[in-house]
Amino acid sequence: MKLYDLKGAPNPRRVKIFLAEKRIKVPIETLDLEAGAHLTPGFLARNPLGKLPVLELDDGTVLCESVAICRYFEEMVPEPPLFGRSTLERAQVEMWNRRMEHELLLPVIDVFVHTHPLWVGRREQIAAWGEAQRKLLVERMRWLDRELEGKEFIGVQRYDMADITAQVALLTARGVARLPIPDDHKNLTRWWASVSKRPTARA
Amino acid sequence: MKLYDLKGAPNPRRVKIFLAEKRIKVPIETLDLEAGAHLTPGFLARNPLGKLPVLELDDGTVLCESVAICRYFEEMVPEPPLFGRSTLERAQVEMWNRRMEHELLLPVIDVFVHTHPLWVGRREQIAAWGEAQRKLLVERMRWLDRELEGKEFIGVQRYDMADITAQVALLTARGVARLPIPDDHKNLTRWWASVSKRPTARA
Repeated sequence: MKLYDLKGAPNPRRVKIFLAEKRIKVPIETLDLEAGAHLTPGFLARNPLGKLPVLELDDGTVLCESVAICRYFEEMVPEPPLFGRSTLERAQVEMWNRRMEHELLLPVIDVFVHTHPLWVGRREQIAAWGEAQRKLLVERMRWLDRELEGKEFIGVQRYDMADITAQVALLTARGVARLPIPDDHKNLTRWWASVSKRPTARA
Repeated sequence: MKLYDLKGAPNPRRVKIFLAEKRIKVPIETLDLEAGAHLTPGFLARNPLGKLPVLELDDGTVLCESVAICRYFEEMVPEPPLFGRSTLERAQVEMWNRRMEHELLLPVIDVFVHTHPLWVGRREQIAAWGEAQRKLLVERMRWLDRELEGKEFIGVQRYDMADITAQVALLTARGVARLPIPDDHKNLTRWWASVSKRPTARA
């Protein structure tokens, strides 16, 4: 089994934090975007879309998409549960994880790709789109702050996949989008301080 | 229990096809986007993001996000399985469903929102982004045609959630984005003919 990782990229990071929470060790090969390692024929044979992470099983079966990889490990190693413990909890974690993807992670990746110099010449950059997504991200951080009123975690009452996605999204927002959590977002700041203290936060 | 639907919208359509495949009947209230029914205080109390579909359980618990709603019903009514039958299959359906969302459904919704007259004055329209997503969609339809070589269905060897997402995305592409499946995409055309014949295709 091998996990293909992309240096500095948010989605593979989600899988690495997930694996660390489960105490699962998987051999990792880290590819370098700037060297174009995700576009070599060898890698494209594994994932023609050129996206990371990719998990290769021992029989050669390839799993793409971070959450598909995490769900595979959730069933192989159920404890601690990171997708919920009951039917309702599992639906709620799915809901909150998707909200964290659509309201935070996808917008911040758009801000990065459409406004950061790293992507000049690699992708068509549409600055107006990057700016629109930056505005959305600011609004959604305020929304999430309200949602966290009286809640310790984002999904159910336990650290789970939705927290991991939000954590990686906000780390990326602070880094490449220069959008740290505003000081007056008290609930989000408290949640951030708590999840950042976890030993797996640096996975 | 009640499902809030949005007239003509692709995401609620996914849930309706899913429920029809499972032969589950749920009372449905259809909101009208043009009347702004998704932005009333009553609806925003259920989902502050103003997005549809929303499932309200009998105890008032609210589930948002199409796939969270579908996963809830998958556990309540396991047959026929629409998210896979084994650990590996469930990971593969998750992977293919996400690919269908990110490579087809999200791009086609962007084309719609950023280029269609219906959205003038409702959302900031960035025409260049709509055009970039249209180009991506054309490329991804070609990619999916190649992936379907020798395959009857998109995910595993059975009609499942990934097929539902692709079906709704391509229906939307043909409709609002004026991008029908090109005739030389033989595999995609064959798959489309097959899924369109299902009695649930008009759900």
